Amino acid sequence: MNTQPPILSSNEAKVLEIVRKSGAVSRADLAEIIGYSRASMTSLINNLTEQGILTEVGDGLSSGGRKPRMLHFNRQYGYVVGIDMGATSLDIALADFGAYIIERHSQPINLREHPDVILAHVRQIILEMLLKRQISPEKVFGIGMGVPGPVEFSTGLLIAPPLMPGWDSYPIRSVLRETFPNARVAVDNDVNVMAIGEKRAGLGNREDNFFVVKIGTGIGCGIMVDGHLYRGSSGCAGDIGHICVDRNGPVCHCGNIGCLEAMAAGPAIALRGLEAAKRGQSEILANILAHNGKITTEDVGSAVADRTANEIIADSGRLIGEALASLVNFFNPGLIVIGGGVSNIGDRLLASIRRTVLMRSLPLSTRHLKIDISEMGSDMGVTGAIALALEYIFDQKEVMRAREYPYHT
Amino acid sequence: MNTQPPILSSNEAKVLEIVRKSGAVSRADLAEIIGYSRASMTSLINNLTEQGILTEVGDGLSSGGRKPRMLHFNRQYGYVVGIDMGATSLDIALADFGAYIIERHSQPINLREHPDVILAHVRQIILEMLLKRQISPEKVFGIGMGVPGPVEFSTGLLIAPPLMPGWDSYPIRSVLRETFPNARVAVDNDVNVMAIGEKRAGLGNREDNFFVVKIGTGIGCGIMVDGHLYRGSSGCAGDIGHICVDRNGPVCHCGNIGCLEAMAAGPAIALRGLEAAKRGQSEILANILAHNGKITTEDVGSAVADRTANEIIADSGRLIGEALASLVNFFNPGLIVIGGGVSNIGDRLLASIRRTVLMRSLPLSTRHLKIDISEMGSDMGVTGAIALALEYIFDQKEVMRAREYPYHT
Repeated sequence: MNTQPPILSSNEAKVLEIVRKSGAVSRADLAEIIGYSRASMTSLINNLTEQGILTEVGDGLSSGGRKPRMLHFNRQYGYVVGIDMGATSLDIALADFGAYIIERHSQPINLREHPDVILAHVRQIILEMLLKRQISPEKVFGIGMGVPGPVEFSTGLLIAPPLMPGWDSYPIRSVLRETFPNARVAVDNDVNVMAIGEKRAGLGNREDNFFVVKIGTGIGCGIMVDGHLYRGSSGCAGDIGHICVDRNGPVCHCGNIGCLEAMAAGPAIALRGLEAAKRGQSEILANILAHNGKITTEDVGSAVADRTANEIIADSGRLIGEALASLVNFFNPGLIVIGGGVSNIGDRLLASIRRTVLMRSLPLSTRHLKIDISEMGSDMGVTGAIALALEYIFDQKEVMRAREYPYHT
Repeated sequence: MNTQPPILSSNEAKVLEIVRKSGAVSRADLAEIIGYSRASMTSLINNLTEQGILTEVGDGLSSGGRKPRMLHFNRQYGYVVGIDMGATSLDIALADFGAYIIERHSQPINLREHPDVILAHVRQIILEMLLKRQISPEKVFGIGMGVPGPVEFSTGLLIAPPLMPGWDSYPIRSVLRETFPNARVAVDNDVNVMAIGEKRAGLGNREDNFFVVKIGTGIGCGIMVDGHLYRGSSGCAGDIGHICVDRNGPVCHCGNIGCLEAMAAGPAIALRGLEAAKRGQSEILANILAHNGKITTEDVGSAVADRTANEIIADSGRLIGEALASLVNFFNPGLIVIGGGVSNIGDRLLASIRRTVLMRSLPLSTRHLKIDISEMGSDMGVTGAIALALEYIFDQKEVMRAREYPYHT
């Protein structure tokens, strides 16, 4: 049994990428795709089969003689864990090397607790999953983790996260590696992980250039360029919540005026609902306020028969659409996926976003543009985290990057 | 003498990229960089030396015995032409495979003339350059051309270009290939070509993620991601001139309201200068108007002692800065290069753009961000066009793309 994570050369990573994606390949086909001689391919593949990461079985389609031997990716070579840490919920999944989820756990969480406490709990849950499946902790070769805050990706550290101040610069990677010594740990912010999830198993599956917009308490964006997550020069690309959408708007907590987030995210919708209830502009919302003592974003979203509530949603969609229209002109994506809590308000918000983007972007930019609500629901986080973990083991580009920024800090 | 353009496998392209960039490499070092066995490297390199595109000379640094043989890129293997077609000027340069310019031509141009006439003239100029250097037209293996209009890159066709309506869907590539049968012809819009020029020989030389903003009659943007030009899903990425910067602004020719271009580009600056002159708000501008009968963008720019002229420039910079601030939050570039005619107004415009971007972007996004005026001047167009031509022969990624979208249409 192998208890070492694979250490791959760039050509080995390339071979594995092809075998993983195509399921089963013959040596001859592989040599042709890569452009290698049979001879150099042989030594490369022998190395991978000796490691046990590729297996060779005589199950190919025969054209007469004995069946040709085909290379398969060994999904049980190792395991990865996906962790999706939300503002109020924790999702953990254990998957094999083929990204197939074999164990899953979900629970409420209080992010204000100390990271020592939360991560001890996370480690315990993973250990229980492994015990149940009789898998050694040393066979966990990758952990991907999404967190609701800004992450310096090269170090895996959260930097001054507003929702989880206790996690500022907390060494998540080394703490997890105490229990899972062979795991490469990749930590990223939740919306980047969502984008990877959409690319792997969602609407982004067939798109190379797209972005995912998360609308919840804040507004953020994960960007895919050529099928790879784009992080920008300092790793903070996609921070669109503080784009100015109204020069005469309210002051945002960032100190600027008229930020998208301050005017269109969940809290802004709830606040406008509360004001409408108090002013008597909406009977439905006034009744909810009288009954519950407060107005939530969901209250405004569910008041479908109410004109004022509809206007609030439409305004939010219009502001988001205006910001996105600028980004569509700049980036010319093939797809925008809308996710996050507020996206549950659904069709009216989507309609308003779509209308504004179409009106405010150039026709050529929107000719092939799709804008849709994510279909992945609560699975998106762990699916993305698992894909993130696997990418950092197998993706050729990421393997190269990993050499520049080693994970094992 | 070889009169065929190189047709490269992806591994050959990879080898050439390394030799081109490093100047001279030994076979052993090359094999190690690529991760090839010596044996497979030998057949690959023999193929390239037989073609004449690589030469091998015994001039390496010796550690005692005879000097090791080094591989060199043969700059005289073939030639490329860079064409920079501006709204009023035409620049053409002939360069060797090392991008070294050996002939250059510059002249005024009237873009309203029929493309048949203009391209016949272009072909004549190139033929004269070749004759002077005694180079056969068949040795021109690449032509790169920048044009001031929207281009569908995969076909090389201009699509409804406002400045050059007669060029709509004109088959530039096949017309040029009538005279230069071995040339791959790549046509792109001027700002994309500027971005390639900045990457190759300008401020973008050490940056992977940056964009170039051209401010002239219009405003456009060329985007570099990971050192490669990013064109977007429909090839129209970077069209930032129609980002809305003022919901109560004037109507733009595109039909929308408050577009950046309509409010901040050259004509808007000139118009505001004219109004100020008429209203007597600026003595300097009023004198210029009385003398010349009109106010140009340059007039406003050169009135450095005039408060109103300074306000006009500052307002333009602020609007451009506001649009760029949104894009900085989204894209997190390491550098923004400002070019185009209006950028000649210089320091005051740059100062206003910088101030606004710093004020309106998130601190993390601007920590390492540089914003500068291009230093390449009028050479940028042809340098970029030459680099574009060479990229479509040698760049590994572009070679792959070329297979999907063949040039020889």
